[in-house]
Amino acid sequence: MLKAVVLNCTLRPSPSVSSTDAILNKVVEALHHRGVGCELIRVVDHPVRFGVERDLGAGDAWPMIVDKILAAEILVIGTPIWLGHRSSVCQMVMERLDALLSETNRVGQLPLYNKVAGSVVVGNEDGAQEVNASVLYNLMQLGCTIPPNSEVYWVAESGSGGEYVLDGQPSEHVAKLVEWMASNLTHFAETLRDHPIPADGNTA
Amino acid sequence: MLKAVVLNCTLRPSPSVSSTDAILNKVVEALHHRGVGCELIRVVDHPVRFGVERDLGAGDAWPMIVDKILAAEILVIGTPIWLGHRSSVCQMVMERLDALLSETNRVGQLPLYNKVAGSVVVGNEDGAQEVNASVLYNLMQLGCTIPPNSEVYWVAESGSGGEYVLDGQPSEHVAKLVEWMASNLTHFAETLRDHPIPADGNTA
Amino acid sequence: MLKAVVLNCTLRPSPSVSSTDAILNKVVEALHHRGVGCELIRVVDHPVRFGVERDLGAGDAWPMIVDKILAAEILVIGTPIWLGHRSSVCQMVMERLDALLSETNRVGQLPLYNKVAGSVVVGNEDGAQEVNASVLYNLMQLGCTIPPNSEVYWVAESGSGGEYVLDGQPSEHVAKLVEWMASNLTHFAETLRDHPIPADGNTA
Amino acid sequence: MLKAVVLNCTLRPSPSVSSTDAILNKVVEALHHRGVGCELIRVVDHPVRFGVERDLGAGDAWPMIVDKILAAEILVIGTPIWLGHRSSVCQMVMERLDALLSETNRVGQLPLYNKVAGSVVVGNEDGAQEVNASVLYNLMQLGCTIPPNSEVYWVAESGSGGEYVLDGQPSEHVAKLVEWMASNLTHFAETLRDHPIPADGNTA
Repeated sequence: MLKAVVLNCTLRPSPSVSSTDAILNKVVEALHHRGVGCELIRVVDHPVRFGVERDLGAGDAWPMIVDKILAAEILVIGTPIWLGHRSSVCQMVMERLDALLSETNRVGQLPLYNKVAGSVVVGNEDGAQEVNASVLYNLMQLGCTIPPNSEVYWVAESGSGGEYVLDGQPSEHVAKLVEWMASNLTHFAETLRDHPIPADGNTA
Repeated sequence: MLKAVVLNCTLRPSPSVSSTDAILNKVVEALHHRGVGCELIRVVDHPVRFGVERDLGAGDAWPMIVDKILAAEILVIGTPIWLGHRSSVCQMVMERLDALLSETNRVGQLPLYNKVAGSVVVGNEDGAQEVNASVLYNLMQLGCTIPPNSEVYWVAESGSGGEYVLDGQPSEHVAKLVEWMASNLTHFAETLRDHPIPADGNTA
Repeated sequence: MLKAVVLNCTLRPSPSVSSTDAILNKVVEALHHRGVGCELIRVVDHPVRFGVERDLGAGDAWPMIVDKILAAEILVIGTPIWLGHRSSVCQMVMERLDALLSETNRVGQLPLYNKVAGSVVVGNEDGAQEVNASVLYNLMQLGCTIPPNSEVYWVAESGSGGEYVLDGQPSEHVAKLVEWMASNLTHFAETLRDHPIPADGNTA
Repeated sequence: MLKAVVLNCTLRPSPSVSSTDAILNKVVEALHHRGVGCELIRVVDHPVRFGVERDLGAGDAWPMIVDKILAAEILVIGTPIWLGHRSSVCQMVMERLDALLSETNRVGQLPLYNKVAGSVVVGNEDGAQEVNASVLYNLMQLGCTIPPNSEVYWVAESGSGGEYVLDGQPSEHVAKLVEWMASNLTHFAETLRDHPIPADGNTA
């Protein structure tokens, strides 16, 4: 069975309500429906430390999370927007993933080769595309494949103060994006599991 | 009397309807109200050529536009969002302004010193802050002063396809932003006209 | 034989020397080496008009270019950096590609499904990652697949005024990026030609 | 005497060597030379918590830092670049500053009105302008004034792995940027201390 790790990069620890959680649950549901086993992790619930090393020693929860990522075929990162940018927790996750640039898989490629990535963003307003572009780009640099339409986002009209969770009304636009992303993540994950990218001109 | 040049960087030549025009007209009205004389220029109506020189020769309309900018105290750039970014016309304008980095004013500072800048963005959805940040940052690099809250933007809820012009309903949020920007542009333009930035440690 | 369209989005018409041309030629060489037929198009040599429609009528060169893109399996976009951003010509290309969001292929997906994209950037300084992120993200939204490490970039030390073409010294870093990108573009293009993405949950 | 708060947003706690520290020390020296009293704070040495409130309760160091900012006339934020973006610590700082959007000063403007801001970035490679644009833009939204050339940055040639600290050679380009920024920050801080922005059309 394909496995997905879904990281929620909200600033708020459980059990606080999280808009990011609400939209990620729709992604998890769609992936489940296609037979993918998902683990949803709210990063801020775990003591992840600032840094760019893979393991920052005693009390650092990141090694546990990165091991799960390396054991899965699909990685989805979900983040709120703050001041137009991905959250500090999301940036912290990317900084920790950066350590993988100095490692390789068994055939000499970056460790995230043959993994497939998607990005999910929710905010009161503006910044979703900037955030998704930055997350997907970094994951591509780290070795992930980015299928078409591998993103979901929702933001309210500027200045309206709209909230994804509070409004509660199901958005058809979000539903379409979730379905597209889940479909393509699953298809590419299967393909890359069965036919890994040959080690030919793309090793360290 | 203070003078403002207001550039509309829509892709559509006159007399096409332009959402950017609609929102810029509110800015012009607010500046007029504070005694500022405004010239609103739809760039695409003029034959501006691609390049990074100040004058690209016969048939290039840019020298006429840049002369107006240099004769004014306030510069406002308005652009639509396309694919999350400032329009190609807006980027072309910035590229032409780049030529000013190799010139100086009479006291040896960049030519746009003592000028004040604002940015205005309108779009169907998402990207307003990315665009305003990039426009204001480039103008700051070129020598403009950026007062607080020197921006206006409006975008619809993601996926809604909302249009600033068609909806027509006056946005209170936009009205507040316009008022803030017009107030601060005018105040700083007066201050810098009467007390230019001393040439001390900031010349080429 | 796989076909690639490689767009050079420099501001300078032929026969001006173009750093972007110099680095794109290395990409074309690497793709040729892997059996891909490449067509390198300097966009500014052709009368492409501002707009977001597929065909802007008499004298518009874009329909010719987009037809070539639709007939190829690989799309590479190369652009200089101006003021930290993709060139106005590159943004104009993206705006014209935007028209494809309202079309579909034979099975109802976006027309660029089953195509593979890469991005190439060269500049005097800073901005390469912002530009590559934005280009690859937009192409992903339009239906392209983004393989791992599907980018090449070179910029000089900030403030050094270094030029890719003038320095002339072959960069080992660039050579590695070119090889990685060419390898992965070719592999994914072959895979998607032979096994198109199924129309299942990802149609308009 | 004018006061400046200079925040170092490196990921590494003291006493680790920090490139950001090295470049910020040049800024502090230049501000001292102009009679500004500076306090340099390495944020990660203090227990600042994730969130968007001004005070997150017992053990949260942010209220101490924000009080210093509110008591100063100049705010300089320095950050490394990680994956092309401002550090997670810098984003955390911006998120905490976001709380000020719901407060006002004595005349009803945002609390950072009449304060002047600058941004400083250092990295192995690429991303400096994206980072400075985002930091200065957010501070402008929060009420700061951004003088011309209010930034310093240094990045190495892409792929070179160059380090600001290790190379050690003084960069003339950085020296010029530091001097320009220090000059303009000081001039505008004096002007705004002596002639605050009138509360006219720019209050909440």
